Amino acid sequence: MEFAKRLDNVTGSAIRAIFALLEQPGMISFAGGNPAPECFPKEDIAAISQKLISENGAGILQYGGTPGISRLKDTVIQMMKARGINALADEVIITSGATQGIGLAAKTLLNPGDVVLAESPTFIGALQTFLTYEAVIKGVNMDDEGMDMDDLEKKLKAYQPKLVYTIPTFQNPTGRTMSLERRKRMAALCKAHGALILEDDPYCDLRYSGQAAPPIKTFDTEGGVIYLMSFSKIISPGLRVGAAIADKRIIQKYNIAKQGEDLHTANLSQEIVNTFMNSGKAEPHIRLICEKYRDKRDAMLKKLKSFPKGVTYTNPDGGLFIWAELPEGMNAVSMFQQCVDAGVAYVPGTHFFPEGGHENTMRLNFSMASFEQIDKGMDILKSVIEKNM
Amino acid sequence: MEFAKRLDNVTGSAIRAIFALLEQPGMISFAGGNPAPECFPKEDIAAISQKLISENGAGILQYGGTPGISRLKDTVIQMMKARGINALADEVIITSGATQGIGLAAKTLLNPGDVVLAESPTFIGALQTFLTYEAVIKGVNMDDEGMDMDDLEKKLKAYQPKLVYTIPTFQNPTGRTMSLERRKRMAALCKAHGALILEDDPYCDLRYSGQAAPPIKTFDTEGGVIYLMSFSKIISPGLRVGAAIADKRIIQKYNIAKQGEDLHTANLSQEIVNTFMNSGKAEPHIRLICEKYRDKRDAMLKKLKSFPKGVTYTNPDGGLFIWAELPEGMNAVSMFQQCVDAGVAYVPGTHFFPEGGHENTMRLNFSMASFEQIDKGMDILKSVIEKNM
Repeated sequence: MEFAKRLDNVTGSAIRAIFALLEQPGMISFAGGNPAPECFPKEDIAAISQKLISENGAGILQYGGTPGISRLKDTVIQMMKARGINALADEVIITSGATQGIGLAAKTLLNPGDVVLAESPTFIGALQTFLTYEAVIKGVNMDDEGMDMDDLEKKLKAYQPKLVYTIPTFQNPTGRTMSLERRKRMAALCKAHGALILEDDPYCDLRYSGQAAPPIKTFDTEGGVIYLMSFSKIISPGLRVGAAIADKRIIQKYNIAKQGEDLHTANLSQEIVNTFMNSGKAEPHIRLICEKYRDKRDAMLKKLKSFPKGVTYTNPDGGLFIWAELPEGMNAVSMFQQCVDAGVAYVPGTHFFPEGGHENTMRLNFSMASFEQIDKGMDILKSVIEKNM
Repeated sequence: MEFAKRLDNVTGSAIRAIFALLEQPGMISFAGGNPAPECFPKEDIAAISQKLISENGAGILQYGGTPGISRLKDTVIQMMKARGINALADEVIITSGATQGIGLAAKTLLNPGDVVLAESPTFIGALQTFLTYEAVIKGVNMDDEGMDMDDLEKKLKAYQPKLVYTIPTFQNPTGRTMSLERRKRMAALCKAHGALILEDDPYCDLRYSGQAAPPIKTFDTEGGVIYLMSFSKIISPGLRVGAAIADKRIIQKYNIAKQGEDLHTANLSQEIVNTFMNSGKAEPHIRLICEKYRDKRDAMLKKLKSFPKGVTYTNPDGGLFIWAELPEGMNAVSMFQQCVDAGVAYVPGTHFFPEGGHENTMRLNFSMASFEQIDKGMDILKSVIEKNM
């Protein structure tokens, strides 16, 4: 059986193997990127869905348009205004999670061999998707202020990339946020070199400290930035609803490409999201999540303070992840099995690097585990690290 | 702005332009392929969704696995048994409608230039998807017994296709059903020539007369048939739930390719479908739909009997469509605007042909319009045809 060449590039097995281990009873997982199960607005959504279907079942259960339900598009446009982004209806398309927004960017823009630049490290799912469309991925260095603009400029010149992928706020996997100056410079640099920016911003509402910087999209003067938002982290990932905001020529291509994927995002999911966002309950709900996650972040950071000298880590103002680096020479990949045997899991950082390496790094998720699990799991992690030093 | 080469092949504008016209007030549409709005189990689904989220909200609102919810996979496996298909859990993946099952077949199997054979005429959405992955599509002749097996054999030899796409039962757009003998022969021919079969079977439960023939998949001895089923026509297309049943090596590739599209099908949609299918209400509901659609089919056929001599049409045992052919030389494309001006719409048949032509054909949908609309709309259509003869 001979499959398409594009699949030779992807396996995703490393991560899937990790998630298989999480099924083990009693396992404390810092590996996922899931919202806290106690933070879903269950009762509200149960009531909303019942009411929606009773009142407009014929519409919700029927085929919908590929661009998405216009009421929800209007809600997205309002949310974008609050972020400083002015979008028209034909500059927005509802997607089945921001994940689809990444896939549609690759499908509509990338020819085999096209170069994509991305933060090194970055979101594994995006790397897999770019590889599926046979792109060549080059990593751009980053530090605590996000992507290194000098390295970006160097690689824009060297590779003439078609696309630059970035998660500027509370980045996955590092939790870092790109500074305002760098956002402005990135928009200018990519414009000057004719590279489109894919700005993936699913975490921006999960801020626990510090001041928000405007999206790179707000510095986009020529439709060169595709902005992806998601409702997964603020309402529910299981509903699979996000949106892409971009130049209308790009949105038209997204629309054609989406027809051949899922035709349209499930109407019920779209209507639930729209109703909840306009119910007056969204803001207090997001505030509640942020308080809960801030406390979990602080609990994990408190434990990290007691880790052996030489272990460094990020101090994110929001999002779901802390990024830890062990002293040079230590190996979070080989150490992984020891941790799992001791009952705690993380994702070895090497998987997030387009060019691999960096075996001494790890991604720690603080949103999913309970406070008790965070305390216990971090103590286990600390002791395993100490054993390996 | 330079887009990926794969999009040069697709527009879809012809059909989208038609659906735009349907917004006109009072327009009677035989153009769509939608279930009848009066046939959705609204109250049942409203109650089911409320109960599901109240009882298992944390699970439903959280991320799900890409292969789909195992309870629903089990339900699909049971449904397949009733169709004569024996599938194991790793031979099934839940898709966001059968549409995604077509897209994932193209994504996982087709390299640019690969040949795909399909009935001529066939489902436009499938043609668009194959073109997006830069396949070369060759049409295979068909008659009232479905795909012409001699023409298929000739083209298997001539083109060595990677994939043969077929809708064997109540085909879109013709309403025709492939005979048992041809199903057996098709499985044997494609096996002998090393071509995979993509068997798209979304209408098979909508049978109003005649005897069911087993799916081609039941004659698949070596995992050479990808079988697509859908809940869109029996429960709701707006929920976007279907499934693909195939060799586990193919399902593994589907799984990887789906991760980069929507990650997983919306959990709530999956749980609603699974609960409804196991509620004891599905069978009577499907019986009810079939009675309603049979009467609508008969109402449309009754009107067609009175159409001018030289107008021929299919007499489908199920599904949603009747295929009409006007006398040679007449043109359903140029006649379309006259019909729309008179208040009735259809889809000109030429759009369904991989190689175009056949301007004297049209697809008529009988499920969506009310009985009154069918009578009135068919009278209008008849008079416009008479004017053009």
